[in-house]
Amino acid sequence: MKLLRYGRKGSEKPGILDAAGRVRDLSAEVPDLSGRWLTPEGLAEIAALDLGLLPEVAEPGRLGSCVAGVGKFICVGLNYADHAAETGAPIPQEPILFMKATSAITGPNDPVIIPRGSTKTDWEVELGVVIGREARYVTQADAMNHVAGYCLVNDVSERAFQTERGGQWTKGKSADSFGPIGPWLVTRDEVADPQNLSMWLTVDGVQRQNGSTKTMIFPVDMLVSYISQFMSLQPGDVISTGTPPGVGMGLKPEPQYLKPGQTIRLGIEGLGEQTQITEAAA
Amino acid sequence: MKLLRYGRKGSEKPGILDAAGRVRDLSAEVPDLSGRWLTPEGLAEIAALDLGLLPEVAEPGRLGSCVAGVGKFICVGLNYADHAAETGAPIPQEPILFMKATSAITGPNDPVIIPRGSTKTDWEVELGVVIGREARYVTQADAMNHVAGYCLVNDVSERAFQTERGGQWTKGKSADSFGPIGPWLVTRDEVADPQNLSMWLTVDGVQRQNGSTKTMIFPVDMLVSYISQFMSLQPGDVISTGTPPGVGMGLKPEPQYLKPGQTIRLGIEGLGEQTQITEAAA
Repeated sequence: MKLLRYGRKGSEKPGILDAAGRVRDLSAEVPDLSGRWLTPEGLAEIAALDLGLLPEVAEPGRLGSCVAGVGKFICVGLNYADHAAETGAPIPQEPILFMKATSAITGPNDPVIIPRGSTKTDWEVELGVVIGREARYVTQADAMNHVAGYCLVNDVSERAFQTERGGQWTKGKSADSFGPIGPWLVTRDEVADPQNLSMWLTVDGVQRQNGSTKTMIFPVDMLVSYISQFMSLQPGDVISTGTPPGVGMGLKPEPQYLKPGQTIRLGIEGLGEQTQITEAAA
Repeated sequence: MKLLRYGRKGSEKPGILDAAGRVRDLSAEVPDLSGRWLTPEGLAEIAALDLGLLPEVAEPGRLGSCVAGVGKFICVGLNYADHAAETGAPIPQEPILFMKATSAITGPNDPVIIPRGSTKTDWEVELGVVIGREARYVTQADAMNHVAGYCLVNDVSERAFQTERGGQWTKGKSADSFGPIGPWLVTRDEVADPQNLSMWLTVDGVQRQNGSTKTMIFPVDMLVSYISQFMSLQPGDVISTGTPPGVGMGLKPEPQYLKPGQTIRLGIEGLGEQTQITEAAA
């Protein structure tokens, strides 16, 4: 299934794509794509619906984040060997974890707001993993049973805030609009191999990132298991699994960062695309 | 006002202390101590209630976190000059920010669970600041208008996970039970000077921490303003503002860490006390 949320920010309704790619309104059946509706039982209830009986949404308009009620927005740093190389960092011995503020979450095509004082706002196309069942000390072999599905994430980052303002990356990862999620939550059954998905990102039509999840250092099942050793995971938590090469800070001959009025486009095979226009913070 | 939540984990009810120190049941008036009920308008509605008309709770039993629906649990590192010194770290030039997982939040007297594989679980008594009004690029002069009140926090930390497992402190700050919050949310009007509160912590009756918020490097109003430059803050967000000296990792002649079966007690002047028994993770 491809699940989504559409409507004005803060009052989105849940929807689902039908076989013809049209949006069907789920709101009479499902209050929101959060919590128990992301569990295996909740997803099975949605899968049992006759989509032909749900209202068709001719004009869905704006899309919101495809997951609601995200409790934790956990990111993995330097999880692609070639990205680690471009940033000059050594290959991590074990996953690097940091948190993005959940208040950074926006819809997939909402504007990206460049914060006041920013000089180094950057892009990162990433595979997002949506938790569907509580995970606490799970093994790698069992980890995927705790995954509801996947989504596209742009882990927007302010590099000066991240690394030049006193320790801990969260400071450069958490501005409002720095977490576009969507368009769709694609359930796990529809992604044959999460470690073989092509991914790309352009800025003003220039290709910047072009990679594949197959070059991840730590794969999805290992990450879910690993994170669950340090904290419990709940349905609706999102893990953003790191970015391939081609971020602005790694460009040669010199880094390039986002300015207001630029267009970012990104996508992952099977998970849809995002388009964001950058704006200066008011 | 002193607001609290009582009852079984996951089904707490909101309550308030009356003039005699008895718990009164707020649940007929207030669904929970979250979101809009923490705003100036929400708190004014609670303040207008006649507590004598609310049911008295003779046996409140377990207390939960005094704040519900915490969107972000933001911590400030090394915010007491003498604590920075004991850890061997330089005095920060600007606040160090990191996130604790919101899933770490527990009641003030719930057990502290020592994670599997932990050898360095440590304590940190801290002043918690509860946001009551959305804050985005607020000035230091205006910052306190965005604060609902204060609470006691134990920023429980696993030092090996925090600093020896590959970057970013969040890994050692986020285990289940690592965030006891409460007993009370004390509204801002009842705390004359948040920069002059004594604070203490004992382990098995031995005094370990004994400090005052007056030795904070960055005071509360500066922190709220500062954080709001990097991310927006919403009602129910909690900022834990750092710990004074006396943590286990700083003890001489050698560090001491928590073992199962120990008793942690801590308190801040006017904000109540917490008692936790440590347990090994199942």
